[in-house]
Amino acid sequence: MKYCSHCRAEVTFDIPEGDNRHRHICHSCDTIFYENPRIVAGTLPVFDGRILLCRRAISPRKGYWTLPAGFMENGESTEQAALRETWEEAEARPVLGNLYSMITVPHINQVHIFFLAEMQVPEFSAGPESLEVALFTPAEIPWDKIAFPTVSETLKRFIDGATGPHVFDIRPDQALHAGND
Amino acid sequence: MKYCSHCRAEVTFDIPEGDNRHRHICHSCDTIFYENPRIVAGTLPVFDGRILLCRRAISPRKGYWTLPAGFMENGESTEQAALRETWEEAEARPVLGNLYSMITVPHINQVHIFFLAEMQVPEFSAGPESLEVALFTPAEIPWDKIAFPTVSETLKRFIDGATGPHVFDIRPDQALHAGND
Repeated sequence: MKYCSHCRAEVTFDIPEGDNRHRHICHSCDTIFYENPRIVAGTLPVFDGRILLCRRAISPRKGYWTLPAGFMENGESTEQAALRETWEEAEARPVLGNLYSMITVPHINQVHIFFLAEMQVPEFSAGPESLEVALFTPAEIPWDKIAFPTVSETLKRFIDGATGPHVFDIRPDQALHAGND
Repeated sequence: MKYCSHCRAEVTFDIPEGDNRHRHICHSCDTIFYENPRIVAGTLPVFDGRILLCRRAISPRKGYWTLPAGFMENGESTEQAALRETWEEAEARPVLGNLYSMITVPHINQVHIFFLAEMQVPEFSAGPESLEVALFTPAEIPWDKIAFPTVSETLKRFIDGATGPHVFDIRPDQALHAGND
């Protein structure tokens, strides 16, 4: 950020009065620009004991498998965001269940939340951001082809039968280990 | 938002190619500016069956009581944010427990999350954003002086003995009813 988005003046990067963190500040129109973590919301959709995964058609991690999830938008609830992303990426309309995981990824300023979701029918197909969508038994999960550590950690806990919700963090080295890019 | 914060050009408010929502777009340096909900993280600190509340020294809702909570910052986890805010507003260092509520307030683009927290000692005092901090038995909660509906709804469920976590939304009319400004 170099310029004020309100008045076009150059901004500084400094600690505002009464604050203890650096922010972009416009001294011309007295605006402080805060930056905060973003929420990624998704589902863990299950049909008949099998889990629905999407193979990503877009970067990052194109070609790798993920649970349907994406950035929560202004004006919607976490549940609405999770179901919208499930429709957009997997063209599935499961019934939303309980919150299952809430995982902070501090080094990329994201919080990923996954809800359990029950598919009443095995109806799904690849949305524009997916190459393919498929149901996997626990034994069939392609662990070395999972896109993100938040997804593999959520899947592991679910398959182990651990009751949620699970609240934890992903460290940068876990992200690298899991091949997150 | 009127100007690009990268290159100073005027932005338009339009639907980017392949998207379905209006965004601020800079056609000069090809940047799309996304806006997403922010997380407010806090605790429900308990000592000996009593709940710690803070009376707000700042707007909005100055003079009203709240659980210690505030905007999550980049680079921290939800748990760290909740404990940091508890220290800043109530100068208390409780032991963090389970996630208790996750409440979307869609009309102001916020998601409020509260963790249970156990105070080992009754040590607390008013931080710079609080007028006073005090422990309340369930019978003593000043229901008509609670700052935000996310706080009153979280307190109600906790006092009713409902096991969490509770995931729900606050509608604009609930906010008005509860006096949110």
